[in-house]
Amino acid sequence: MGAQTQDVNLTQAGLDHWAAAQPNGKTNGHTNGHAAQPLQLLDASKLTFQYADSTAREVPTEAEANAGLETICTDHMITCKWKAASGWEKPEMVPYGPLSLMPTASVLHYATECFEGLKAYRGFDGKLRLFRPDMNAKRMLMSTLRISLPGFEPKELEKLILALVAQDGPKWLPRSRPGSFLYLRPAMIGTQPQLGVQAPKEALLFITASFMPRLDLPQGGMRLHTNPEDMVRAWVGGFGYAKVGANYGPSLLATQEAKERGFGQILWLYGPEGYCTEAGASNFFMVWRAKESEGGKLQLITAPLDDRLILDGVTRRSVVQIAKERLADEIEVVERKYTIDEVLEADKEGRIVEAFAAGTAFFVCPVSWIHHRGQDVHIPMGKGEMGQYTSKIKNWVGDIMYGNEQHEWGVVVDELQQ
Amino acid sequence: MGAQTQDVNLTQAGLDHWAAAQPNGKTNGHTNGHAAQPLQLLDASKLTFQYADSTAREVPTEAEANAGLETICTDHMITCKWKAASGWEKPEMVPYGPLSLMPTASVLHYATECFEGLKAYRGFDGKLRLFRPDMNAKRMLMSTLRISLPGFEPKELEKLILALVAQDGPKWLPRSRPGSFLYLRPAMIGTQPQLGVQAPKEALLFITASFMPRLDLPQGGMRLHTNPEDMVRAWVGGFGYAKVGANYGPSLLATQEAKERGFGQILWLYGPEGYCTEAGASNFFMVWRAKESEGGKLQLITAPLDDRLILDGVTRRSVVQIAKERLADEIEVVERKYTIDEVLEADKEGRIVEAFAAGTAFFVCPVSWIHHRGQDVHIPMGKGEMGQYTSKIKNWVGDIMYGNEQHEWGVVVDELQQ
Repeated sequence: MGAQTQDVNLTQAGLDHWAAAQPNGKTNGHTNGHAAQPLQLLDASKLTFQYADSTAREVPTEAEANAGLETICTDHMITCKWKAASGWEKPEMVPYGPLSLMPTASVLHYATECFEGLKAYRGFDGKLRLFRPDMNAKRMLMSTLRISLPGFEPKELEKLILALVAQDGPKWLPRSRPGSFLYLRPAMIGTQPQLGVQAPKEALLFITASFMPRLDLPQGGMRLHTNPEDMVRAWVGGFGYAKVGANYGPSLLATQEAKERGFGQILWLYGPEGYCTEAGASNFFMVWRAKESEGGKLQLITAPLDDRLILDGVTRRSVVQIAKERLADEIEVVERKYTIDEVLEADKEGRIVEAFAAGTAFFVCPVSWIHHRGQDVHIPMGKGEMGQYTSKIKNWVGDIMYGNEQHEWGVVVDELQQ
Repeated sequence: MGAQTQDVNLTQAGLDHWAAAQPNGKTNGHTNGHAAQPLQLLDASKLTFQYADSTAREVPTEAEANAGLETICTDHMITCKWKAASGWEKPEMVPYGPLSLMPTASVLHYATECFEGLKAYRGFDGKLRLFRPDMNAKRMLMSTLRISLPGFEPKELEKLILALVAQDGPKWLPRSRPGSFLYLRPAMIGTQPQLGVQAPKEALLFITASFMPRLDLPQGGMRLHTNPEDMVRAWVGGFGYAKVGANYGPSLLATQEAKERGFGQILWLYGPEGYCTEAGASNFFMVWRAKESEGGKLQLITAPLDDRLILDGVTRRSVVQIAKERLADEIEVVERKYTIDEVLEADKEGRIVEAFAAGTAFFVCPVSWIHHRGQDVHIPMGKGEMGQYTSKIKNWVGDIMYGNEQHEWGVVVDELQQ
C-alpha cells in the first residue's frame, strides 16, 4: 500500500468488470442462450403506475412512526421482476404491501439477497434531496453480481429511486418538516421457487421508502465492544465489501451479546493482528495524534478498502473527501490498516482525540468508549455532544444533505404535486 | 489434534449451550421480560390441520417433477409462527402455497435464515423411513441460534417433520415406487417487518416435502474445481459449520464459473496451506494409501470438525461410523486437516484410490477429477461407476435408508391412510 491516501474505487471496478462482460455492453449480466432474442434491460422509462389511495393513511410523527416493532413505509413501493430467459420486466409503482414468495424461493434458503440504504432529505430551503444516489446504485450492482443476482444499468436504478421519492416525498416528507428524512431501501432477492444451491433464474428488485429512527446522537456517545475471538465478521476472499444479506445475519449474535453488556455495537477486528475494520454496520474513524517518531501530526484514520474487508461506504467516502478538502491544514487523512493495539497504545499515551462511526443509518455518530478484552478506552467527546472535528465534518456533510450548502453531492428531486 | 479419530459433537455442544441458557430449561431461547408469563414452547402436539383437496393434484413421475424450473412440493406444508413476546404459536398443517412477507421482513435483507435437508425413503419392504432425523433437528437448533433465530426443542421439530411425511407420504411416495425418496426441507426465517440490523422479534418455521433430482451418479463422476484464490467459502470464527443461508448465496459465483468450465462443484480450500474442506455443499472424502513413511495403510480421510469450518453432515457422520465398524480390517478412518498439496503428491505417487462427496442431496457421489490451478488429478472409479469402497459404503447406508437392513438409523414413519 505505502501511500497514506487511497482511492481504490471498488464500486467502479465492479461496474467495469460487469460492463466488460456484456456483449455490446447491453445484456444485463445474463444471456439466455438465444442470441436472436435480446434480454430486456432494466428500463426506468417503462415504469407503470398503480396508485394507492393516498388519503387512506395519515403521516405519523417521527416519534409515532418509530415507536413500534414495524417499519412504517410510505404509500408506494417500486417492484421489478427479472427472469433469466427474458430479462427485466416493466418496473411497477404499486401500493406498499406484502410480497408473495413460494416457500422454495431462493432468497429464503440461500441468502441470494443484497440491498442499499440511502436517505431522502427535506432541506431547510424546502427542497427534497438525495445524497450521491449514483454511488448507491453502482454499489448495488456490485453487490448483486457478487451474489449471482442479475446486473442492470445503475442509472436506471437511480431513476427508479428518484421516481419513488418524487411520488411519495411531498406527502411523507412535507415542507413543514425541514431537517427530516425518509430512509430508502432498494433490495434485490432471488425468487426462483426451486430448492438446490444454484444461481436463481428469477429475481425481484424492490424499493421502499420508510421512517427510520435518528441514530446519530446516542446518549453519551456510541459504545463499542470488540468482537469475541471466535466470531469474525468478514475475511479476505469473502464478501465483507458487498452489501449482501450474508454479512448481517451472522453478525447479530455478537451484537446482541454486546448490547446485553451495555454496548451499542461491535468493533470488528480482523486477523491475529486485530486490525480495526468496522463499527457495527458502519465504517469507523479515529482522530489521533501520530507518534512523535512518525511525525506527531494530527490524523484522521480509517481502514482501507483494498483488502475488500469493509464496506465501501458512501458516507465514508464523503468524510474522507471533505476532510481532505477542508481540513488539509490541520489534519492528515490516512487510509491504512491499523490495529487495536495501536489504539490502546495511543490511548495510554494520550494521543486519541476523537472517534466516530460513519454510515447512512448512523450518519456521523461520536464514539465515546471502546472495550477490548478487559481494557477500556475512553474517548474525549469535547465539551458537548461530540468533538470538534467530528462536529465539523458532520455539519459540512449535513449542510449538503439539507440544502444549507449547494453542492453537487446533493441531488434535488423533482417532486410531483401532492 | 493428534488423534486420528475424532468425534467432536458440535450439534450436541450447541444444544447443551442452549439448554443451559434456559431458566428451568424451558423458555425457547428468548425471554420476554415478563417472568410471570412464560413463553410458549414449540409443541408438535398442538398441530392443527387444514387439508388440501388431495384429489386436485396428481403425483408426477420423477422425470416430470424434475424437468422444470420449479420445485414440485406435496399437498401440504407445516408452518409455525414465533414472536419474541409470546413464543411459539400452534403449528399448522396447511395446503402448500405462497408465503406472504412484508418487503421489510428481516430475512429479505439480513439473511436471518437457516434450513435443514433430509429425505423420506420408500423402502423395498414397503415401509416409509427417515434417516436419523434427530440429527437434523439438533443441527437445525444450532443453526437457528447461530443466526439469532429462536430456539426450540429438537424433538418437537422432529415430530412435525414426521407428521408431514405421515400425511403426504402415502400419496406422494407410494408403495408402487420402492427405492424412491422425497426431499424434506425444514427452514426458519426472520419475518419481523422492521429494517435495521437486529435480531428479529418474529420468525416463521416452515417444512416442505418435494421432489428433488437424483444427484448421486453424474455421468463420469463428479468433477471438482478448486476455488479461486480470492473467493473462500468459510473461515475460522465464521459460520461454515452452520446450515445458514449466508453460507450459500456468496458461494454461487465460484460454482457458476466452475460449471462454465465443465466442472460440477467447487472443492473449497482453506487458508494459505490450502486445506481441503468441502466439495460444493457436500462433505468430501478420499480413500488413499498413506505414505510408506507414515505406515502405508489404506485410509479414508476427511476434514475434521473441530475448527468449525465444515458442515457437521449427517451423511458424513454416518459414513465415518459405518466405515469404522465395517471396514476396520481394511481401512483406517482419519479425520484431520489435509492439504491440496498432499492430494497432488499422493496422485503423483499413485496412492489415490477413490474419492467421493457425501451429503443429503448428493448422497454418496463418486468424484473422478480434481482441477487445481493448472494441475489435474484423475481419480480411479474402479471398473464401473464407482470404486469398491465408495460402492460398499453407499450400499450399506442406502440399505438402511431403504429398509434392506433393519437399523436404528432408519426411523419408520407411521403413515396415515390415504
